[in-house]
Amino acid sequence: MESNENKGLSRRAILGATAGGAAVAGAFGGRLALTPALLGLGGAGAATVAGAGAARAAGGTGTVAPGQLDSYYGFWSSGQTGEVRILGVPSMRELMRIPVFNRCSATGWGQTDESIRIHQRSMSDKTRKQLAANGKKIHDNGDLHHVHMSFTEGKYDGRYLYMNDKANTRVARVRCDVMKCDAILEIPNAKSIHGLRPQKWPRTNYIFANGEDEAPLINDGSTMQDVSTYVNIFTAVDADKMEVAWQVMVSGNLDNCDADYTGKWAFSTSYNSEMGMTLAEMTESEMDHVVVFNIAEIEKAIAAGQFQEINGVKVVDGRKQANSQFTRYIPIANNPHGCNMAPDKRHLCIGGKLSPTVTVLDVEKFDALFTGNADPRSAVVAEPELGLGPLHTAFDGRGNAYTSLFLDSQVVKWNIADAIKSYAGEKVDPIKDKLDVHYQPGHLKTVMGETLDAANDWLVCLCKFSKDRFLNVGPLKAENDQLIDISGDKMILVHDGPTFAEPHDAIAVHPSVMSGIKSVWDRQDPMWAETRKQAEADGINVDDFVGEVIRDGNKVRVYMSSVAPSFSLESFTVKEGDEVTVIVTNLDEIDDLTHGFTVGNHGVAMEIGPQQTSSVTFVAANAGVYWYYCQWFCHALHMEMRGRMFVEPKDA
Amino acid sequence: MESNENKGLSRRAILGATAGGAAVAGAFGGRLALTPALLGLGGAGAATVAGAGAARAAGGTGTVAPGQLDSYYGFWSSGQTGEVRILGVPSMRELMRIPVFNRCSATGWGQTDESIRIHQRSMSDKTRKQLAANGKKIHDNGDLHHVHMSFTEGKYDGRYLYMNDKANTRVARVRCDVMKCDAILEIPNAKSIHGLRPQKWPRTNYIFANGEDEAPLINDGSTMQDVSTYVNIFTAVDADKMEVAWQVMVSGNLDNCDADYTGKWAFSTSYNSEMGMTLAEMTESEMDHVVVFNIAEIEKAIAAGQFQEINGVKVVDGRKQANSQFTRYIPIANNPHGCNMAPDKRHLCIGGKLSPTVTVLDVEKFDALFTGNADPRSAVVAEPELGLGPLHTAFDGRGNAYTSLFLDSQVVKWNIADAIKSYAGEKVDPIKDKLDVHYQPGHLKTVMGETLDAANDWLVCLCKFSKDRFLNVGPLKAENDQLIDISGDKMILVHDGPTFAEPHDAIAVHPSVMSGIKSVWDRQDPMWAETRKQAEADGINVDDFVGEVIRDGNKVRVYMSSVAPSFSLESFTVKEGDEVTVIVTNLDEIDDLTHGFTVGNHGVAMEIGPQQTSSVTFVAANAGVYWYYCQWFCHALHMEMRGRMFVEPKDA
Repeated sequence: MESNENKGLSRRAILGATAGGAAVAGAFGGRLALTPALLGLGGAGAATVAGAGAARAAGGTGTVAPGQLDSYYGFWSSGQTGEVRILGVPSMRELMRIPVFNRCSATGWGQTDESIRIHQRSMSDKTRKQLAANGKKIHDNGDLHHVHMSFTEGKYDGRYLYMNDKANTRVARVRCDVMKCDAILEIPNAKSIHGLRPQKWPRTNYIFANGEDEAPLINDGSTMQDVSTYVNIFTAVDADKMEVAWQVMVSGNLDNCDADYTGKWAFSTSYNSEMGMTLAEMTESEMDHVVVFNIAEIEKAIAAGQFQEINGVKVVDGRKQANSQFTRYIPIANNPHGCNMAPDKRHLCIGGKLSPTVTVLDVEKFDALFTGNADPRSAVVAEPELGLGPLHTAFDGRGNAYTSLFLDSQVVKWNIADAIKSYAGEKVDPIKDKLDVHYQPGHLKTVMGETLDAANDWLVCLCKFSKDRFLNVGPLKAENDQLIDISGDKMILVHDGPTFAEPHDAIAVHPSVMSGIKSVWDRQDPMWAETRKQAEADGINVDDFVGEVIRDGNKVRVYMSSVAPSFSLESFTVKEGDEVTVIVTNLDEIDDLTHGFTVGNHGVAMEIGPQQTSSVTFVAANAGVYWYYCQWFCHALHMEMRGRMFVEPKDA
Repeated sequence: MESNENKGLSRRAILGATAGGAAVAGAFGGRLALTPALLGLGGAGAATVAGAGAARAAGGTGTVAPGQLDSYYGFWSSGQTGEVRILGVPSMRELMRIPVFNRCSATGWGQTDESIRIHQRSMSDKTRKQLAANGKKIHDNGDLHHVHMSFTEGKYDGRYLYMNDKANTRVARVRCDVMKCDAILEIPNAKSIHGLRPQKWPRTNYIFANGEDEAPLINDGSTMQDVSTYVNIFTAVDADKMEVAWQVMVSGNLDNCDADYTGKWAFSTSYNSEMGMTLAEMTESEMDHVVVFNIAEIEKAIAAGQFQEINGVKVVDGRKQANSQFTRYIPIANNPHGCNMAPDKRHLCIGGKLSPTVTVLDVEKFDALFTGNADPRSAVVAEPELGLGPLHTAFDGRGNAYTSLFLDSQVVKWNIADAIKSYAGEKVDPIKDKLDVHYQPGHLKTVMGETLDAANDWLVCLCKFSKDRFLNVGPLKAENDQLIDISGDKMILVHDGPTFAEPHDAIAVHPSVMSGIKSVWDRQDPMWAETRKQAEADGINVDDFVGEVIRDGNKVRVYMSSVAPSFSLESFTVKEGDEVTVIVTNLDEIDDLTHGFTVGNHGVAMEIGPQQTSSVTFVAANAGVYWYYCQWFCHALHMEMRGRMFVEPKDA
């Protein structure tokens, strides 16, 4: 239950204290909830009803009235679902799904030629072999834990979103202008990309990506029983080119990471400094560590050619035994997890997981670790004991931190400055508030709390278990993303948000950052550049209203346009066994007028947005007539928007 | 904007009329919305705050407070996304996704052995050939338009949900005890299953399924240019066995369907009575029709052996020219669409689509069409003119109907009895209210409005376009499922619900019907019966804590158990090129404690719920060490829940 014990006013007392309150409360028929403003009624009695719309903290409940817009974009990871989700904050409504590592039945992601090209662009030979042995062209799944936006000078810049795939060791990018994935990069050498963060300063030149799992660098089976050959890899991805810039071999494994506000440092937690192969071994040591990466020193070595090239990637050795200037290892109590840089530009907060503490490191003390070989623990400026199972920490713009306690199922609000004073010996309690959440929280995020624009209104806490919070839907339950009002001194839970497996992480971004979003595709978009090139070779102008069938051996390319409610071709003819590519251009220019193209009984479907070109390739194996149709409602005569594919028998 | 013009009270007037209202309104900080109870304050001034929780109509806004449960289960189709969604009503929160025709990266649906068996069970030879030619085992997509629950005596009985796949001509079933799909049936002979409804009385023995697209019955390419050989098929599926019971050839195509409350009739709309092949031809005739199916007559013929067997299915001829007792054709104005049986047990409402009318048929007059050869139009008892683009009709328990107007972007509330009186010449306006919706509504549904339990609180209206109603998320926009309070005389829009492509249809069900939902699987569940059988043949008891590797030529079966936070096997060894089947049993018995099994860089992932057994098969093509891990957060040491698959080189 919501933790209300310290609020000092009962619901009954509030109602009794308000003239007419009882009648109005009755009128609300049960929707009256305790809000911060209600709790401080005296000061909030302005006689106007705000223009409804985006519910603000300080009086908000997360409800957004019909026709009103949310205050923030929320970008949600989906874990093993493999997609990115756009939610509205504070309504917590899912506004869009962006398929990335998953297959999407609706849009044809993973099936269209354009999406398969993005999947295959950087695919390793090993992955091609693995897929071919299983009759596949691309992986069917991903495990997308973290989604972060590109930065310019410590603030979100609305260009790209970046995300990891722990399952198949990949990093992907989503274009914020059209909200579609435009690059998927398989990371060589590393195994299981987990933590992922963009460089914050001066801009996102790199995406830092943690390899979580240990394996031999030359993973061909020759040394796989010899753990001493195992290594973990930290990767810097060139965020513009979506190629690996460089990699660092580290001691121990890598869990979560972050970057600072000067561009000098990146850092990662390691829960398996032991390089253990079993649960018992991984939790054996009292202390694990945080690795600090010295970006300038690494860049210098790369520029000077002081690297090994492994699988086409420049790799430097930052392991302890290498005694390099690339890394420093700061001991942290058992199995640390969260790694969060505060917007005060100085303090990095490391969640203890098996220790009840958060360790606060002052990044301004990191230089001394490298140049003076200072004691690594000299960078620790606070280590508040917060509760059981501290995982991640979020920040507001007032110097406060919010840490999720997995085992206690709580969020603890604490003050960084007070924690530092306390660590220095002053008698001050850094803990300001605790709130029960439901249940077992993982990540938690404030609005723009990972940027210099950290806001003070909302916190979302991504709980791993929902148990009794929703109608029972069977053995598989929703997770519970809870919305918490942090505008006042006390945190107030205002909304339970069920979500499908499994949002690990999220960010919330002000709409002013998102001004580049388009509603209609640009006809020259690079997404279908290769398709356009093929069309040009076929003498087809895909920008025109067109209906042409080009035969090229047993390959057939069918070019058509769609204008609601019809395709330019009412039918087309191929032969049994032909490899058919259908290229559809949606010539409608109206916002929201997406068409679809589905071929009956062929397992073929794709999305074509306004002014978009999409294509799909399949073998037509059976003679007969098959209808194709538009599966995206587009017009009163949408159901009549269909045509026939004639597949002639082989002998005909 | 919301249509408030007839409410007679302004927001200002309400606030002014309430002592303390202004102060309280200010305190609400903008969240005060117009509610029906507010509009009728005088009668609603009870001095109690209802126990919060499920917001009721008559005072509700759809907001459900944290920790409180929704009033109803909503089961949503997802159109081309291919899944079923469970939403809470009135909060409109998505509580769960049930993959059916789509692939699911999270649960491994479409990848686990158990789900592939369900997909393949009734697959036709043609589909197998089509898939094989494209290197696939199952289709990647579906187009799931309609989801309906099984009935007993005209009421939902909580046993099953049934749904269509228009894209690949299938009908599927979801078990309501575990909320998982247990059967996918490919329908022979028919093309593009669109409309789908369960028999309502005496129970759901049949699922009625409409074939929308015309094709030659023997669709081998031999007559595909000869439209006179084209036919459409109405299918009755045995709802228990999930096999085709019988089929009826019809004249024209089939769009939506429904069944009556006596078990005598099923009926379908046809927008293409012309058997046109182009948009122009399909809309040519002034009148199309509704087909009425006489169940008893069809069953009699089937029992008497008076059928053709085509592709293993019993087919009777109900085309006009056959002059059978199986069907009657009732002329309806141009391109009718919706087909909705009212809970008054008598009135069937047909949406005009291109005609501004809804045609009301009295099913008690249908006997005369068959026995007396009465004029088919003699069954028409009303034909109110409602507005432009009437598509579907929903019902409350008070004799009212609610019709979506696609072109007008409105819902119109009308009274069936008054419409009948008006048709008979009385001067009465059947239209009671109109409400603007946003925008272009398709289906709309009241709570249990397709059953004898029709309720009077909520209506959801599934709009096809959202346009400006949400933050801009790129060229692809959300649809908008709007929640409307219908408890009073006037409809009131209370919530905009963004949804991903494309919920065509939905039902809402009272939780009392859903008492059979489990939180933990039964170890004897049939879902993994075949896997259990294989284990028994291997001498493995999958109910025990087990960790065994069985080699069978180049097939390797790896049996393991999972108990948070570890798998029973810390590693296992196979050889390059082996076909590996991993069978995992989750021995945790705790609600909500789902485990996952993912193999790094192998594109392999699946869900294993509490007490569930799941298995997945893949070829391990590359030598090396690969970690497997649990991708479903299960424990503070969840990240340490991993082990190694050693793939030995071929020569080793």
